[in-house]
Amino acid sequence: MLIVPEREIANLMTRAAAFDAVEQVFAAMAAGDAYNFPVVREAIGHEEALYGFKGGFDQAGLTLGLKAGGYWPHNLEKRDLINHQSTVFLFDPDTGKPSAMVGGNLLTALRTAAASSVSIKHLAPPDAKVIGMIGAGHQATFQLRAALEQRRFEKVIGWNYHPEMLPNIAKVAQEAGLPFEAVQLDGMVEADVIISITSAFAPSLMAGHVSPGTHIACMGTDTKGKQEVEAALLARSGVFTDEVAQAISLGEAQHAIAAGLISEGDINQLGAVINGTHPGRISPDQITLFDGTGVGLQDLAVAAAVVALAAAKGVAIKVDI
Amino acid sequence: MLIVPEREIANLMTRAAAFDAVEQVFAAMAAGDAYNFPVVREAIGHEEALYGFKGGFDQAGLTLGLKAGGYWPHNLEKRDLINHQSTVFLFDPDTGKPSAMVGGNLLTALRTAAASSVSIKHLAPPDAKVIGMIGAGHQATFQLRAALEQRRFEKVIGWNYHPEMLPNIAKVAQEAGLPFEAVQLDGMVEADVIISITSAFAPSLMAGHVSPGTHIACMGTDTKGKQEVEAALLARSGVFTDEVAQAISLGEAQHAIAAGLISEGDINQLGAVINGTHPGRISPDQITLFDGTGVGLQDLAVAAAVVALAAAKGVAIKVDI
Repeated sequence: MLIVPEREIANLMTRAAAFDAVEQVFAAMAAGDAYNFPVVREAIGHEEALYGFKGGFDQAGLTLGLKAGGYWPHNLEKRDLINHQSTVFLFDPDTGKPSAMVGGNLLTALRTAAASSVSIKHLAPPDAKVIGMIGAGHQATFQLRAALEQRRFEKVIGWNYHPEMLPNIAKVAQEAGLPFEAVQLDGMVEADVIISITSAFAPSLMAGHVSPGTHIACMGTDTKGKQEVEAALLARSGVFTDEVAQAISLGEAQHAIAAGLISEGDINQLGAVINGTHPGRISPDQITLFDGTGVGLQDLAVAAAVVALAAAKGVAIKVDI
Repeated sequence: MLIVPEREIANLMTRAAAFDAVEQVFAAMAAGDAYNFPVVREAIGHEEALYGFKGGFDQAGLTLGLKAGGYWPHNLEKRDLINHQSTVFLFDPDTGKPSAMVGGNLLTALRTAAASSVSIKHLAPPDAKVIGMIGAGHQATFQLRAALEQRRFEKVIGWNYHPEMLPNIAKVAQEAGLPFEAVQLDGMVEADVIISITSAFAPSLMAGHVSPGTHIACMGTDTKGKQEVEAALLARSGVFTDEVAQAISLGEAQHAIAAGLISEGDINQLGAVINGTHPGRISPDQITLFDGTGVGLQDLAVAAAVVALAAAKGVAIKVDI
């Protein structure tokens, strides 16, 4: 089997490779060629950690395996390690033998950024000029960098609950040669594309903060109870997701579903748009909303891509298991 | 992290080490210090394979991780590989970083054998003389070898649906210097200890085939629908298991539960006997029955033991992940 340590990922993986991997696996999911297994997620009662497994099988790409790991909230303060720790394990679907082990920390950031980026490619207005960021943490910088490659944006605006973090995303805008402006939430009416990437438990973006024709990618809600946007916003949007089952149970859509504002049948797979079996955006004035919940198949897809890159460059560690 | 390849396991792991690891983790489970995560098991629609994850956390032993793998029914015929393929991944519970990867094929056989062996130690009559085997496949040889170490057995008797396989277990008896006799199922009345290790979907051992005072270890039933012994036998036995939730859903007890012959409250954890919080066998005439369903914590326990042995002997492969 091949091992690609975490330290090698940054030298190997590109945003373009992550984008292609995630776009392909979303398409395979919608075509019924790839599916995610039930997610295991446990509060283990030690170090306040959350630990679990996200597995799946992509029959189109012949990618089988899981991401294992979780959230160790005291890693940084106690040990100078990042709090999110994960590792991807791939298996040979012909034999059941392990084929690769890949550090999953940077890959998780890249695949999450790729997901909103794929949604922008397929759903955002073609002439989008202003991108609005809700959230300015570490992951927000990944989302913004990937998003800027999808349209000819001319300006970045941003809001964060803690404004002192806004320089994180201002720096990304500056690197891309774009002006950055800090705004209040109602300033988001200026945006053609909005990405929310927070871990909030109450909505920040209200329906009145969004102009007709905007595309919104909600990337922060991955747990029961979390919420980034007003539920009413989903009722007036074309709603898309990576996986419908996750969207209604632990994604942004959970609240609009619970309130009876939309039903499961109103939520479409982004992969169907990629495959051309769903039209996607149906008018220039429609608001489109992507509920990105994060699925194991994304992790497997980017891991398989990086293993191929590492093998080609000769930097994968070979172990005879 | 440390890697212990499958080829090293036979040189490192002993039946005694597997016994100790499984006995300790059963005790930890019953004490509430260790628990198994929900099992993921999927028919992936490729090579007719079953694939999944069995994870858990032992807070007493600080062992966290999972066994991943499954059953590839065409491995042997197509590729000269064994059909059951698994790998154990251990994580540092303090940080979430992977700490070890261990070949899981031989370990699975050893931990399954250790489970019935632990049940014999704690439940079988102290003066047991005759051990009866129902099933004579590859795994039966592991069960018998481990069992013979628990009592001063004087004779092995055996039955198998395909009698031509009985030499497998006759050979183990011979190696131990014990006589072997092939019997019909009603010949099991002679046995003081019976181990059933088949993959049958209908009962072989009926209540009338078992004498008072016998200890039975049912080790083959790990799926809805499988059955090795008549349900009525459980109603007249003291019933013990590794994990009650598994016993009633996919273990041997599923049938007696479904028929209303016993209830969940009638099933005891073997670990409680180990811990002294349950008396175990309550009379010389009581039939005791261990429903061994197989839990992820057993896999983690033997894997942790073999990693320690490999590290001590300097044969673990170190990888900086």
